[in-house]
Amino acid sequence: MTSPRADAHPADLSTEHLHSALEDPALASMNFLNEVANRYPDAISFAPGRPFEEYFQIEDVHRYLRVFCEYLEQERGLSPAEVRRTLYQYGRTKGIVHELIARNLTEDEGITIDPESVVVTVGCQEAMYLVLRALRADERDVLLAVRPTYVGIDGAARLVDMPVLPVSGEGPGIDLDDLIRQVRRARAAGLRPRACYVMPDFANPSGTSLDLALRHQLLEIAEEEDFLLLEDNPYGLFNGGDDRVPTLKALDRRRRVVYLGSFAKTALPGARVGYAIADQRVAGRSGAVELLADQLSKIKSMLTVNTSPIAQAVVGGKLVEHGYSLLAANVQERKLYAANMTQLLHGLARHFPAGATAAEGISWNAPTGGFFAVVTLPFVADDALLAYSARRHGVLWTPMSHFYGGTGGHHQLRLATSLVTSEQIEQGLGRFAALVADRTRTDWQLPAT
Amino acid sequence: MTSPRADAHPADLSTEHLHSALEDPALASMNFLNEVANRYPDAISFAPGRPFEEYFQIEDVHRYLRVFCEYLEQERGLSPAEVRRTLYQYGRTKGIVHELIARNLTEDEGITIDPESVVVTVGCQEAMYLVLRALRADERDVLLAVRPTYVGIDGAARLVDMPVLPVSGEGPGIDLDDLIRQVRRARAAGLRPRACYVMPDFANPSGTSLDLALRHQLLEIAEEEDFLLLEDNPYGLFNGGDDRVPTLKALDRRRRVVYLGSFAKTALPGARVGYAIADQRVAGRSGAVELLADQLSKIKSMLTVNTSPIAQAVVGGKLVEHGYSLLAANVQERKLYAANMTQLLHGLARHFPAGATAAEGISWNAPTGGFFAVVTLPFVADDALLAYSARRHGVLWTPMSHFYGGTGGHHQLRLATSLVTSEQIEQGLGRFAALVADRTRTDWQLPAT
Repeated sequence: MTSPRADAHPADLSTEHLHSALEDPALASMNFLNEVANRYPDAISFAPGRPFEEYFQIEDVHRYLRVFCEYLEQERGLSPAEVRRTLYQYGRTKGIVHELIARNLTEDEGITIDPESVVVTVGCQEAMYLVLRALRADERDVLLAVRPTYVGIDGAARLVDMPVLPVSGEGPGIDLDDLIRQVRRARAAGLRPRACYVMPDFANPSGTSLDLALRHQLLEIAEEEDFLLLEDNPYGLFNGGDDRVPTLKALDRRRRVVYLGSFAKTALPGARVGYAIADQRVAGRSGAVELLADQLSKIKSMLTVNTSPIAQAVVGGKLVEHGYSLLAANVQERKLYAANMTQLLHGLARHFPAGATAAEGISWNAPTGGFFAVVTLPFVADDALLAYSARRHGVLWTPMSHFYGGTGGHHQLRLATSLVTSEQIEQGLGRFAALVADRTRTDWQLPAT
Repeated sequence: MTSPRADAHPADLSTEHLHSALEDPALASMNFLNEVANRYPDAISFAPGRPFEEYFQIEDVHRYLRVFCEYLEQERGLSPAEVRRTLYQYGRTKGIVHELIARNLTEDEGITIDPESVVVTVGCQEAMYLVLRALRADERDVLLAVRPTYVGIDGAARLVDMPVLPVSGEGPGIDLDDLIRQVRRARAAGLRPRACYVMPDFANPSGTSLDLALRHQLLEIAEEEDFLLLEDNPYGLFNGGDDRVPTLKALDRRRRVVYLGSFAKTALPGARVGYAIADQRVAGRSGAVELLADQLSKIKSMLTVNTSPIAQAVVGGKLVEHGYSLLAANVQERKLYAANMTQLLHGLARHFPAGATAAEGISWNAPTGGFFAVVTLPFVADDALLAYSARRHGVLWTPMSHFYGGTGGHHQLRLATSLVTSEQIEQGLGRFAALVADRTRTDWQLPAT
């Protein structure tokens, strides 16, 4: 960044008179994480939750585009001029790959939906924004979110000035008693809890998955207490071993679930294509009933107009090429992520064997898939320790406090396994063990930086 | 759309408890315009302000992608692995074509900017949203906009609950006295006028351009009265004959202008790539001074994370291919649009010659470029007349009242010339003249539909 500070002119504006989200501590801490990563490019990084990129080739983009155009001509019966128009012009606000998404959900998730209930979005982040913007009618509307929480939902909620009430995610992934308590307490205070955000499969950042019984109970509670569930599912395909548990949306019989879909981990992040499934019926003032998807579409028309048809074509081509199955498209990736997670968990067990002094007070969870595991330490794992870890030991990770809005997780850190090689996991865990040994020396002090 | 009304289940939600923008009359009227267009596909349409698509070929997308990747390797020195990562992964929040945009602005507009002040966005619409979200700190913040106004800015303002105060756009394109009056009246009422939205070149919908003197005065007023100018410039490149007038941003010496850029008309709408130039200095609570672009970037990180690098690569490739000049890239298009506008204005003069009975009370403006002209009629040109015009005469246009939020323009309509052929203009004007003759019959009554 340039440094306008050096300029003699005074500032033109002040954040005091801009939206308050711009002074959120969360933004500063995200900045800090990026800076550390940039300052130590040679460190082994368990920080980014990005998908493995080495199976991708630029040529794939060209092929996906061609496959999608063939699909438009051959399966949808478009003329060459219509195909050209589809890619070139402004398009349908709700998107052009909605039918492919519906087929994909049937194929991979056993979810049957009307393609009209799909809104294709600029990544899952826009889907979150659209849903929260629709639900936030006035200052009484609040969102619930399982803590620790993916930072993206906090960001979207900030933009619509919607408070996020934390629900404990300890133990099995969500504390249902706490959920009910939070909902009722909010109602008693005159607030309207509109929805609860949850990532039931291999959650970011905890790695935790909800079991089937818990999912059924959660759906029951949403019905009884009258709120929606916002189910975010970027990692569900990456189960390591056992059978996959059905999504909330697959179990949803009463339209309680808005499903937030992402192609960032299963197709490619660079397309920035995600979607919402919003099959809820909305009564309008005129008496007409429309799908919630159509309400989200109206908001999208004021926000981004439509998702790039070229970007959608890339994702659509990948879906067509693999018979609408992202499980089929991710055979290599699924193996790799499962192997990485197994190696990480075995490595932690080897470095911190039960009964050993250095392992005292150290524990970790054992996700059966996904990108993330969480280590709990007998000492604080904050930004200062991360900076030290990077500089002194050449290993990066993410302090869990970032996912608690600064109110918890102080002794925990997240390890991401998606972007590292087997060698890096091995070496990185060695460095991490050295950091722990270093930090648990009785005379340890964080050196001034 | 499916009809959930047929279902026996009651609605799940009501718009009463959703964001109030969802019941905006503007949305219903947009819907109406789309429905009319869909119902009469064989009508000749002067309605859509879409760019001419027949010069585009799907193969262009492939070539632009290849050109951009070569640029990354050869000019930016990226390795093949880095090029792959650039297209595949999440990217820089402010975008990856900022340097190309800076070069393009130097080339085509004589604007010199620091590439760090560019935020690449999902179409110009997202740029509008980001700026308004930043500026709207609380309920005192208001926007000014020249009426008639492009509907996109109204939409973005609705999403951040920011009132839009109209400024008269009569005559030369903006009534500066009215502007000052509106600003002072708002201040006196305890409001904070933060910015005035203006499209100085071939405005949508009026077709009007501001002359140089007016631009200088506008900049002066913005400085004296202390607000920003949001300059939206999608059509500036499409001047028909005379030399182009410098943009406000090119004349801006005191960082009063946030420039909103679009590639939808000059590259391709399907990329959904636009940008904001925000070089204003913003003082933060910590005392640090950052560019407004960096504040917008923070908001973007919570809204869409980043603009698809694949979509950016398509636009970037087009810029590189034409030596960073969109004037050079649009030689054919510029000729076509200029010829269409000339033909339209000549055709109107032929069909409605001065002194003829049918021409009584009919007038039109004479834009020297762009996509739009406005016809003023001696009768109301509303949605009902449009429906009649489509059904009975097979010609479509846009009632100007849509651009006045229903508070004006009742006797006016917009004719767009960008998506019609020469034959269609000829035939369409004949049909339009028949509508006018029909409507001015003394016994005319709008038939019940």
